[in-house]
Amino acid sequence: MYLFYAPDLNTADCFLNEEESRHCIKVLRLQKEDVIEVIDGKGNFYHAKITAPDPKKTRFVVLQTQQEFGKRNHYLHIAVAPTKNIERLEWFIEKATEIGIDEITPILCQRSERKIINHERLNKVITPAVKQSLKAYHPQLNPLTNLSSLLKDQTQAQKWIAHCNDGEKVSIKEVLIPQKKYLVLIGPEGDFSPPEINTALENGFQTITLGNSRLRTETAALEACFEVNFLNRL
Amino acid sequence: MYLFYAPDLNTADCFLNEEESRHCIKVLRLQKEDVIEVIDGKGNFYHAKITAPDPKKTRFVVLQTQQEFGKRNHYLHIAVAPTKNIERLEWFIEKATEIGIDEITPILCQRSERKIINHERLNKVITPAVKQSLKAYHPQLNPLTNLSSLLKDQTQAQKWIAHCNDGEKVSIKEVLIPQKKYLVLIGPEGDFSPPEINTALENGFQTITLGNSRLRTETAALEACFEVNFLNRL
Repeated sequence: MYLFYAPDLNTADCFLNEEESRHCIKVLRLQKEDVIEVIDGKGNFYHAKITAPDPKKTRFVVLQTQQEFGKRNHYLHIAVAPTKNIERLEWFIEKATEIGIDEITPILCQRSERKIINHERLNKVITPAVKQSLKAYHPQLNPLTNLSSLLKDQTQAQKWIAHCNDGEKVSIKEVLIPQKKYLVLIGPEGDFSPPEINTALENGFQTITLGNSRLRTETAALEACFEVNFLNRL
Repeated sequence: MYLFYAPDLNTADCFLNEEESRHCIKVLRLQKEDVIEVIDGKGNFYHAKITAPDPKKTRFVVLQTQQEFGKRNHYLHIAVAPTKNIERLEWFIEKATEIGIDEITPILCQRSERKIINHERLNKVITPAVKQSLKAYHPQLNPLTNLSSLLKDQTQAQKWIAHCNDGEKVSIKEVLIPQKKYLVLIGPEGDFSPPEINTALENGFQTITLGNSRLRTETAALEACFEVNFLNRL
């Protein structure tokens, strides 16, 4: 199966962008009449046929469409402080995409060591993972955002914060209501500050534990992603 | 907290090896009388004090010992085909160590693309992850092993194989008996061959599903690791 990503697909005039066209024609050497599969990142999975191979703009026609392909029964948003070593965040983004996530927000916290990210580069990690894991939905990667704006989130999600301070903690297993929206906050290497934690609790976040191990930022984020997906699996 | 690893510790004559001594003295600049924590990888967690700082062989005395520190209630052995890109296997080893694993065996399968590994290099991934996640047990990394010898495993573990072929599959959630031994087989990029799968089934392995996503080798192995730990968490 040859799977391509066409995020702005208009079914009346279908073509692959330059990057996907080059891969299709120069690397895979596909030709006119060859069958391909195309996803638009918005839930559509197209069975299609190449009509005009071109390494800059390959045209195709859709033979069959599956809507809401592999639609998940919940909505997971993880907000995570970018790691000092950005490869660790990239790894999280790749793995979360494979396992299942809808929205990722890199957050800027009081103790963040990394205060800038290359959004385009991080976003480029997602597409191959979407294709690899045969997903028709492309997770949304938000720009670097101040934690404070997320603390006031009013999306009616179940809202959780993971930190290493003392205090009452619940496991996701105990509190998750299946098939809902969830927002999870994961702090930087130096953890959330006490004022950040207090503001979160005042705004309806619950403190969660992710088990007994002391986990790195990106591992904690992935553990939360895994738990939410696992608990929503029927 | 300054945590060091001393795998062959004899409490009558305690010292750090050259690598750990250098880190202790040259990097952290610890001195005589400074307090350190030491793990031996076999479950002992020592509270200790430096008696003779030396960048080649730092001596210390044990003040207090906790045995079976963080002992887990089950035994997880994952056998996984090394990935073509070895960094992916290294990531798995690091993350599995943080989350919780006892034994890792790189396996050689009929369709393995990578037929050699650098055991020492892979083993070097484990120790920092053990220290990072505050574990007193050091997972065992076995040499590259022919799959056939594992297929005849008789350790009384619950034995599972993950493959992409058709056929009846169970989820770990449905079949896991808590607090047991588990052996999970994860194949190479090209999957296990039908004869390998048949031999596994004949030898008491059950085929498991790890969800609806098509996962990369290292993600599948980590998903299995997550699930077994999660289901054994009280």
